[in-house]
Amino acid sequence: MYRVTILYPHAEGKRFDLDYYVQKHVPMVRALLGPFGLRSAEVAEGLPRNGAPPPFVVIASMTFDSLEDFQRGMAQHGRQINEDLPSYTDMKPTFQVSRIL
Amino acid sequence: MYRVTILYPHAEGKRFDLDYYVQKHVPMVRALLGPFGLRSAEVAEGLPRNGAPPPFVVIASMTFDSLEDFQRGMAQHGRQINEDLPSYTDMKPTFQVSRIL
Repeated sequence: MYRVTILYPHAEGKRFDLDYYVQKHVPMVRALLGPFGLRSAEVAEGLPRNGAPPPFVVIASMTFDSLEDFQRGMAQHGRQINEDLPSYTDMKPTFQVSRIL
Repeated sequence: MYRVTILYPHAEGKRFDLDYYVQKHVPMVRALLGPFGLRSAEVAEGLPRNGAPPPFVVIASMTFDSLEDFQRGMAQHGRQINEDLPSYTDMKPTFQVSRIL
């Protein structure tokens, strides 16, 4: 199983519209990548710790049975997914693909 | 549900003993925090992308029903868990607590 993780680092003065992300963006991604083998999608909101902001405002992730599933889905729909970014943030996310052990 | 994420950023010349981590450290954490409400633990190994190393060598995470479960477990066993760090790495992990939406 593979996990694709998208991390939005906390940075002063940046915006992140969590409502839009959860209500609009993630459902769109589910609908587009579901037919390409998306197994699960999760949004985790970073919590402050000892009064300090979290390292990441949001850590989102998706699981796929195979990397090929993810790659085929993104070849088909990656442009539409990526073009939605300005609708919810002006941050530059960190992107990672991992193998779940 | 809450997710505790421990991220080990890639850095040139740093070591990470993935075998030890998976075979020894994570089972220890499961055994210690299981009685405190640990629901799941996952180790995800970062994969290179287009020939470049991943942002994080490893992203590990745990889920708990409540933050109090995690805090009680760490109050009891956090020292033993943290003291095992040099057994598998000389990296300084990034630590985050998130609420799963």
